Amino acid sequence: MRPRIALDGMGGDAAPGIVVDGAAMALGRHPDLRFVLCGDEAKLKPLLDRHPGLRAATELRHTDSVVPADMKPSVALRQGRQSSMRLAIDAVKAGEADAAVSAGNTGAMMAMAMIVLKTLPGIDRPAIASCLPSRRKPVVMLDLGANAECTPENLFQFAVMGEVYARAVLGVAKPSVALLNVGTEEVKGDSVVRKAAALVRDSGLPIHYAGFVEGSAIAEGIVDVVVTDGFTGNIALKVTEGTASLFTTALRESFAGSLRGRLGYLVGRPALTALRARFDPRLYNGAMFLGLNGVVVKSHGGTDAVGFGAALGVAVELLQKGTNRRIIEEMGVAARPGAPDSDSAPDSDMATG
Amino acid sequence: MRPRIALDGMGGDAAPGIVVDGAAMALGRHPDLRFVLCGDEAKLKPLLDRHPGLRAATELRHTDSVVPADMKPSVALRQGRQSSMRLAIDAVKAGEADAAVSAGNTGAMMAMAMIVLKTLPGIDRPAIASCLPSRRKPVVMLDLGANAECTPENLFQFAVMGEVYARAVLGVAKPSVALLNVGTEEVKGDSVVRKAAALVRDSGLPIHYAGFVEGSAIAEGIVDVVVTDGFTGNIALKVTEGTASLFTTALRESFAGSLRGRLGYLVGRPALTALRARFDPRLYNGAMFLGLNGVVVKSHGGTDAVGFGAALGVAVELLQKGTNRRIIEEMGVAARPGAPDSDSAPDSDMATG
Repeated sequence: MRPRIALDGMGGDAAPGIVVDGAAMALGRHPDLRFVLCGDEAKLKPLLDRHPGLRAATELRHTDSVVPADMKPSVALRQGRQSSMRLAIDAVKAGEADAAVSAGNTGAMMAMAMIVLKTLPGIDRPAIASCLPSRRKPVVMLDLGANAECTPENLFQFAVMGEVYARAVLGVAKPSVALLNVGTEEVKGDSVVRKAAALVRDSGLPIHYAGFVEGSAIAEGIVDVVVTDGFTGNIALKVTEGTASLFTTALRESFAGSLRGRLGYLVGRPALTALRARFDPRLYNGAMFLGLNGVVVKSHGGTDAVGFGAALGVAVELLQKGTNRRIIEEMGVAARPGAPDSDSAPDSDMATG
Repeated sequence: MRPRIALDGMGGDAAPGIVVDGAAMALGRHPDLRFVLCGDEAKLKPLLDRHPGLRAATELRHTDSVVPADMKPSVALRQGRQSSMRLAIDAVKAGEADAAVSAGNTGAMMAMAMIVLKTLPGIDRPAIASCLPSRRKPVVMLDLGANAECTPENLFQFAVMGEVYARAVLGVAKPSVALLNVGTEEVKGDSVVRKAAALVRDSGLPIHYAGFVEGSAIAEGIVDVVVTDGFTGNIALKVTEGTASLFTTALRESFAGSLRGRLGYLVGRPALTALRARFDPRLYNGAMFLGLNGVVVKSHGGTDAVGFGAALGVAVELLQKGTNRRIIEEMGVAARPGAPDSDSAPDSDMATG
């Protein structure tokens, strides 16, 4: 298979430069990739010309229309039908690409992806899933911000999808799945998370359910999959990023604060560089919209070319591992494209930006 | 004033040792402190005997009964009437102590404190508040786990209390107050947080309302007070702790991984020690139950004597700064001990442990 990826050329704070340069990096790692690059030809063509190999592997699809970062999803659905983001998703729907990747407006992208691609059979709402660094191994976490409010059924479906993701993409044989809560005891939390626990426990699915975990369990890596609603998940993700960034800054300040510290920094630099590399947020970039009829990956809006290239790597891996097909099998139902529950419009404006 | 602190001698993983040793440390810093130490005399007396100064400043109140860490708050209310935790809170109610401090079961402590002390006028539910480290200055955050589900009115009251806390305890002249959300735009989040925003904005109170902030804003320190529900707040707190701990471990591993790294560690050790001290979770130990007729401080259950001593320092500071009196003034109502809304029993089992 030669994976074909549709790119929203105009999404992201530093687009289109990071999109084209990131695609060139991804092509260096996966020489069989092909791209459908959507956006302003006048801006994209000169960038492409700097990468002859990429240019040869890329079909350019021109449009003037762009979804701004602060546009409400409901407005983007109406006004963005010709946008670079929408063209990329449409290309997946039309079978002209296998995956769509964008660093643009998250809420708009989720809304468009749900309307165009529909959800997988058995899935009411897609979730944003990604891997977070931990003491042991990457931990799959979802939802990271697609659904501010969730039902127990939503959380149950996220658990099923997250488990498949850990098996298919990370290669964990029997992933442990936990629900994020304010304590590990069964009585803890609100009624939604307690009902979700009962659904997962009593589902009859061969899921290794590990019960409730607290927020510290993510960094500790004591389970493979952590499930929560999009409100809590988004805040947990941003708190992780904020704390890591605070620590990195404080480490630098601490070393810079004295002559001996600066000397220690020089001597210990390889160790510090390795540490930075381990927690480089760019390498964890690329969150999948899990639960759609199609692979859609969201890059962080503020990332650079390295980060965008990493997001493309996520898309490639999801395609190679057949993640969506395995979710469909796991939900135990035949594919029902356009099933009633997949036609409902997303409660888009609650998604994160 | 000579602050009198009632101690739950038996609460906490390493009680009663940390309680007595922590009290001795606090007495070293605040020589005018007096204590009412509640718990098993046979265990406490030998510990006290090692600190003659503390022994002289302490009244011992014997009880055999202890609230276990995993006891449901509703059960603790019925069965724990003679427990060391309850005796400490009763001492505040009886005017025999100015504050109660425990490292025991959080949910039980919140339930007992609400039943015995009642909430302040204008406050429906107390919140757990604490200071978190940030790039700039400590950030007041609440609720950290008392209320898994909150109404907009709860969040509004937390905002008022948090603002007073930042002024009274941290000495910030005009604290900025923000609501934690999945994005900064007004349309983001669920209906509870959006209604809470309207309440704060339109309250007429002279609060510097800074709008919504994302999870990364805590570590960035871009506001003085961050308000959220107890579910999200507890997870944000534990994610912060988990990420900081992961980073510290990874830093050590990174330096230990090579000869040059080990040398760099030796040279840079003062800088690394300063870094560790800045983020030492023990120094941030001690969360106040804000909104009660009385000062009640919860220590982390797993802390050591240094951490317990820091929690006692929080209690002393709250007393010295008259935080509760200022909250009462701020709510714009006269003290109404035993007002109807302060008699309602807490939905205790949702609190964290």
